[in-house]
Amino acid sequence: MTKVLVLHSVSLVGSALAALLRSEGDFDVTAAGWRTAARRAESLRPDVAVVDVDCPGASAVLTGKGTGPGRLLDPPTPLLVLATAKTPGTLGRAFQAKALGYVDKDGSPGRLVRAVRKVAAGERFIDAALASAFMQADPVPLSPRELSVLARAAQGDSVAEIARALHLASGTVRNYMAAVTRKTGARNRIDAIRISRSAGWV
Amino acid sequence: MTKVLVLHSVSLVGSALAALLRSEGDFDVTAAGWRTAARRAESLRPDVAVVDVDCPGASAVLTGKGTGPGRLLDPPTPLLVLATAKTPGTLGRAFQAKALGYVDKDGSPGRLVRAVRKVAAGERFIDAALASAFMQADPVPLSPRELSVLARAAQGDSVAEIARALHLASGTVRNYMAAVTRKTGARNRIDAIRISRSAGWV
Repeated sequence: MTKVLVLHSVSLVGSALAALLRSEGDFDVTAAGWRTAARRAESLRPDVAVVDVDCPGASAVLTGKGTGPGRLLDPPTPLLVLATAKTPGTLGRAFQAKALGYVDKDGSPGRLVRAVRKVAAGERFIDAALASAFMQADPVPLSPRELSVLARAAQGDSVAEIARALHLASGTVRNYMAAVTRKTGARNRIDAIRISRSAGWV
Repeated sequence: MTKVLVLHSVSLVGSALAALLRSEGDFDVTAAGWRTAARRAESLRPDVAVVDVDCPGASAVLTGKGTGPGRLLDPPTPLLVLATAKTPGTLGRAFQAKALGYVDKDGSPGRLVRAVRKVAAGERFIDAALASAFMQADPVPLSPRELSVLARAAQGDSVAEIARALHLASGTVRNYMAAVTRKTGARNRIDAIRISRSAGWV
């Protein structure tokens, strides 16, 4: 019986996805949140871990960083991500994390079931909608430095605070933010944050 | 048999919530997105409509505005909302919309099942975690005018664009934004948007 670990930051949605998998296929499903994810993965040794990439905290699973779910990848658990075509940046991170399965959240439950079977068998599964979004997506137009300045600005940090935190001059931070605004085709800083967020870059 | 209509903007999550309800109780469950919601409600005449208030577009259901799911409330369908204690503002809107059921998304599936039964019987159901978040929440400190300026700023509109759209002078828009920043205890405009968004005010 295929052992599936569903990870979700919203408890009820995790339980619901588990119920869906149980009702549709011959799966032994456990749902968990981020805090218990690593422990569950260690004790269960799941054949597939299903992760919604739009959850806050999912990037720790994808990048393998952090103390919690990041440990899922060590030893590696075959990863199936739930994503939408709207955030190609997030999709790109999952791709870098070598996820095997990519399921469109705007798709049908049958696709998820097929994907779990494929990934459990060590095969790749990519929903066509996601593949085409990923291929048509522009590469992230921002440098790592610009992204780190932008991420702090999006949290409400002032130019002075960002400068202090990143050991930069205030003028340099302003230049980075101006570059971000220009490169994203935004009207202003707030618009740049909105655009970058909706593309899944921050 | 209790007829339940689950409304969710993410197709897979709607299907998953439907599977959860089917597996746990004696429910006749249909999942739908916003576009087909009104049509489904009309043909099904559900005993309960389950709405995740954090979905973009959910406010149309709650306020009864808009062409689509808003029509759900005419004739009124008993409403059960899924929410978290983190966004008391959203919870407040559901309350104004006279939803009967309030289920914590960070809770257990059993609570959702109990809530559906209660609401179908015309009774109120409020998760304790949500009730206490709602009662402890500060009232929205912003005026309707400040909220409409803030909502446009959050979309990346410039002061000039907001002024044009709302038929205000640019200085007036700047005054509103300054008031919003002060009242939310924010460090700057971007911080004010972040704070207001996380409280569920915009």
